[in-house]
Amino acid sequence: MSTSSSRIQPAQTCDQVSISPDGQAFPLPGPADIERENQRLQELVRAQRSLGREIVVVMGVGFVGAVMAGVVADAVHRKTGEPLYFVLGMQRPSSRSYWKIPFLNRGRAPVEAEDPEVAPLIARCVNEKKTLAATFSYEALALADVVVVDVQCDYHKNALGNVRDGHAEIKALEESLQAIGERIQPHCLVLIETTVPPGTTEYVAYPILKKAFSRRGLGQKHGADSSGVPEPLLAHSYERVMPGRQYVASIREFWRVCSGVNDEARSRVQQFLSKVLNVEQFPLTVLDRPIESETCKIVENSYRATILAFLDEWSRFAERNGVDLLKVIKAIKMRPTHNNIIFPGPGIGGYCLPKDGGLGVWAYNTLMGFDDDIFKMTPLAIDINDTRALHVAQLVRDALRNMGRIVAASRIAVLGASYRQDVGDTRYSGSEMVVRKLVEMGAEVVAHDPYVKHWWEFEKQDSYPAPGKSWARFFRNQEHLSELRMAEDLPGALAGVDAVILAVPHEPYRALNPEQVTEMIGARAAIIDCFGLLSDEHIARYFELGCEVKGLGRGHIQRIKKMVRNGK
Amino acid sequence: MSTSSSRIQPAQTCDQVSISPDGQAFPLPGPADIERENQRLQELVRAQRSLGREIVVVMGVGFVGAVMAGVVADAVHRKTGEPLYFVLGMQRPSSRSYWKIPFLNRGRAPVEAEDPEVAPLIARCVNEKKTLAATFSYEALALADVVVVDVQCDYHKNALGNVRDGHAEIKALEESLQAIGERIQPHCLVLIETTVPPGTTEYVAYPILKKAFSRRGLGQKHGADSSGVPEPLLAHSYERVMPGRQYVASIREFWRVCSGVNDEARSRVQQFLSKVLNVEQFPLTVLDRPIESETCKIVENSYRATILAFLDEWSRFAERNGVDLLKVIKAIKMRPTHNNIIFPGPGIGGYCLPKDGGLGVWAYNTLMGFDDDIFKMTPLAIDINDTRALHVAQLVRDALRNMGRIVAASRIAVLGASYRQDVGDTRYSGSEMVVRKLVEMGAEVVAHDPYVKHWWEFEKQDSYPAPGKSWARFFRNQEHLSELRMAEDLPGALAGVDAVILAVPHEPYRALNPEQVTEMIGARAAIIDCFGLLSDEHIARYFELGCEVKGLGRGHIQRIKKMVRNGK
Repeated sequence: MSTSSSRIQPAQTCDQVSISPDGQAFPLPGPADIERENQRLQELVRAQRSLGREIVVVMGVGFVGAVMAGVVADAVHRKTGEPLYFVLGMQRPSSRSYWKIPFLNRGRAPVEAEDPEVAPLIARCVNEKKTLAATFSYEALALADVVVVDVQCDYHKNALGNVRDGHAEIKALEESLQAIGERIQPHCLVLIETTVPPGTTEYVAYPILKKAFSRRGLGQKHGADSSGVPEPLLAHSYERVMPGRQYVASIREFWRVCSGVNDEARSRVQQFLSKVLNVEQFPLTVLDRPIESETCKIVENSYRATILAFLDEWSRFAERNGVDLLKVIKAIKMRPTHNNIIFPGPGIGGYCLPKDGGLGVWAYNTLMGFDDDIFKMTPLAIDINDTRALHVAQLVRDALRNMGRIVAASRIAVLGASYRQDVGDTRYSGSEMVVRKLVEMGAEVVAHDPYVKHWWEFEKQDSYPAPGKSWARFFRNQEHLSELRMAEDLPGALAGVDAVILAVPHEPYRALNPEQVTEMIGARAAIIDCFGLLSDEHIARYFELGCEVKGLGRGHIQRIKKMVRNGK
Repeated sequence: MSTSSSRIQPAQTCDQVSISPDGQAFPLPGPADIERENQRLQELVRAQRSLGREIVVVMGVGFVGAVMAGVVADAVHRKTGEPLYFVLGMQRPSSRSYWKIPFLNRGRAPVEAEDPEVAPLIARCVNEKKTLAATFSYEALALADVVVVDVQCDYHKNALGNVRDGHAEIKALEESLQAIGERIQPHCLVLIETTVPPGTTEYVAYPILKKAFSRRGLGQKHGADSSGVPEPLLAHSYERVMPGRQYVASIREFWRVCSGVNDEARSRVQQFLSKVLNVEQFPLTVLDRPIESETCKIVENSYRATILAFLDEWSRFAERNGVDLLKVIKAIKMRPTHNNIIFPGPGIGGYCLPKDGGLGVWAYNTLMGFDDDIFKMTPLAIDINDTRALHVAQLVRDALRNMGRIVAASRIAVLGASYRQDVGDTRYSGSEMVVRKLVEMGAEVVAHDPYVKHWWEFEKQDSYPAPGKSWARFFRNQEHLSELRMAEDLPGALAGVDAVILAVPHEPYRALNPEQVTEMIGARAAIIDCFGLLSDEHIARYFELGCEVKGLGRGHIQRIKKMVRNGK
């Protein structure tokens, strides 16, 4: 943990720039810019305080922080309708992220979202209500009544399929907390919203803030005794953001859990969240200690990961024994107690489920210092989920072999790049791993996704969203993958391919019928159904058209094939 | 698999009897009785057929079969209100089970149930509607239009915490199918309702019936060619029975899944179930092949077992790190997608969850003949669940140690014997294992349960419900357990004990307050909360009264203890 004091580093040369996803270049601020920015903040905050508004700094305006900043800036007094908060979105001026500051200050959301509410929310708060601005200066922290920490905390895996071999990356969080401790007023509420290893608020954040307060000479000191140092007002409340069309609602109109390190922090966070979220319809759960709310988040996402991983083995069982697991799931879902059983598709992606359990296991051994291993299901679930996509490549191989072809000499279309239907979020998607595995085996891959213009994981390594945050390092032969072709339309993706992988059940893919697909291909091909997209009738039709069909968890396809071959 | 023909064995000596749970002795039938019984069946069935009723034989009138027989016998024509079926409950005349036949024939249910509907249902069908009778003779099979098979199929474990080391016990089922194949008319529908290893209907039952038909010379034969042998009409549809007050409804008013080995069997089972169950409100799912519905049952119960097992590790994490897992679960349950997360208590019992996954794993390797192991979560979940109760003994040990006592010199009250709240079903309950472990460690145990008069697992080994069906074989020192005292009332259970284990959240236990409990004990004691029964206020009160408190998954108890000790 760094104890050196944290300072914004001005750009070393005047040609350092930050490039936004749409290609605009923004020069990084120099020393004079920093001075000017601090002056601007002082004036802004003075004006806002005179309007009776509290100042909220949101650290990290990424996927969660940007929308959280908007939701807080949008909050109004229940009776008067007057805005309650002035929000400063904060981001360090790195070449990777600086562009978000000018974006936000123009009223433009620094995240791509399928939710049509995101863009107007940001625009409204910045341009009309004037309750939202962005800054790259840490000095904003000194002006805050509340700091919301939305700095990422990743989990780094050293191996594929062994989450225990890895570690939580809490350095960025520690540095942010250091900057906070050095600057905030003691009465400022620090709300950690990042999903963190359980214990982080009390074992990591609390000592950083307490020591920083002590070094600053806050409170009454008696010699070397620091008992008079004020208690940091630290709280934890995690988000339950869901990418897609309900993105803003998943922050504002959803159940929350919060906690604080002491009574005052707990009471403050409860008051704050009650003002910005719809707690009437979605009651707030207040837990005693931050480790309880931190654990809550890890348990709920590990639960989901476990539910998904559970069906991997039954998916294989089904494939080998004539069972259509999709129909089995539908039958089981009739039971209200079982209605969250869910087919895992070609791997479990998204930002949270592949990592959160790892944070829990790591915390137990690292932060709490236990030397035994009590975790069985949580890491196993992640290991199963992280490797499930490899099985898709086997289905492709087997289907092609049935047609006398091999992967290495084939051109394969992957339909769907995102980790979930009808969103454009590609983080740790099963499709990414399917592509990497097939490329490793020598295939030529073309990809298509109606929601994905750039598949960032296959762009150059210094591009958005983050370097090294993909499955790339676990596969050979990935060098020429920057040539991965994202087809502009389906006919372009499918023309002349040997195999088509239906990887994500996006609405447009559900609507496809076998005649359309084979016509776009222009020949018979292997069709791989990863998500139960194909009805039995469509499967039969594909066979009639001379195609081979295989599907994850769809063991009954062999039966359909025989019936078609027998002319039934 | 037995190929010798199946015959009812008459009693060898006239003093062989079957003793019912309430102590009545019934002499087993001799050769003359069998003859007379077959005559009676002929006449009964002739009379019933003349009323336009179909004949349904339910093989095995145990926990499921008895009530299923009642439900079928209770079914009426939607328009005329006339009974549709005459049901014969069948049970082999063994000394363990024969008593069920005279019981049923007097209109008395051969199972204990908390559901007040069970007794009147059986009484009504036997005595008023005259649509239900019972028999010990296999000859009933020859008269049947439908045979419903409710013969048990257990899974035998050779070790504790390693379900892979075991096997499905399908012998009784094979013998029943042999008896069926030798006697039924070819047009008779055979509906297997037992939870079986996936594949059993097609890989085990079908060949037995087909071969039996062939040996009987049914159908057109051309020399050694058996192609003219009629196809057995085999179907599978599993029950989803839930012990408790909704027992009958869990059969009649609940979603069902069915399937058949061919189109006719599938259509017949669909018609049959549509007549006896409420399929308007609870639609029937019809799957293509029996292996799909068999798999369905195993997957849904393995899913439940997995959901429960998942929290075991988090329960330990919580205990060691100041987290109250019960509050965490409550917070997570707010999410509709997570509302079936459920605290596992002191082990996962009941007849189904500890075994069904084992049937699946066994089928894959044994019936389907695969030599690899694709199952990771399913057996792990059972192994975790099967050993969870051992941890309760550790909590008891640690709580007693805090009071300067040891288990071996203590008297311990276990409150709750059943596997679930507010039912009396003790099969494979966590409480049983807690008792066995504490006895192994030398404790004197007294048990109490308002729903359990006899704790059969601790009775002599040849008693009801079945020999060897308990956790007994995995523990030492169990010899003197026949002396396990079931207290008649709570004061009797608690007087003078060193520790009280709140093992099952039965309603009467939830209502207890610390003053009542300590007064009944007459001294301070260790209180072990296995199911989150105690509120934080009650925990604090126990500490004030000088007790020690520990709880599964309740790591915050230490915090409460400190606050009480500090006088807060």
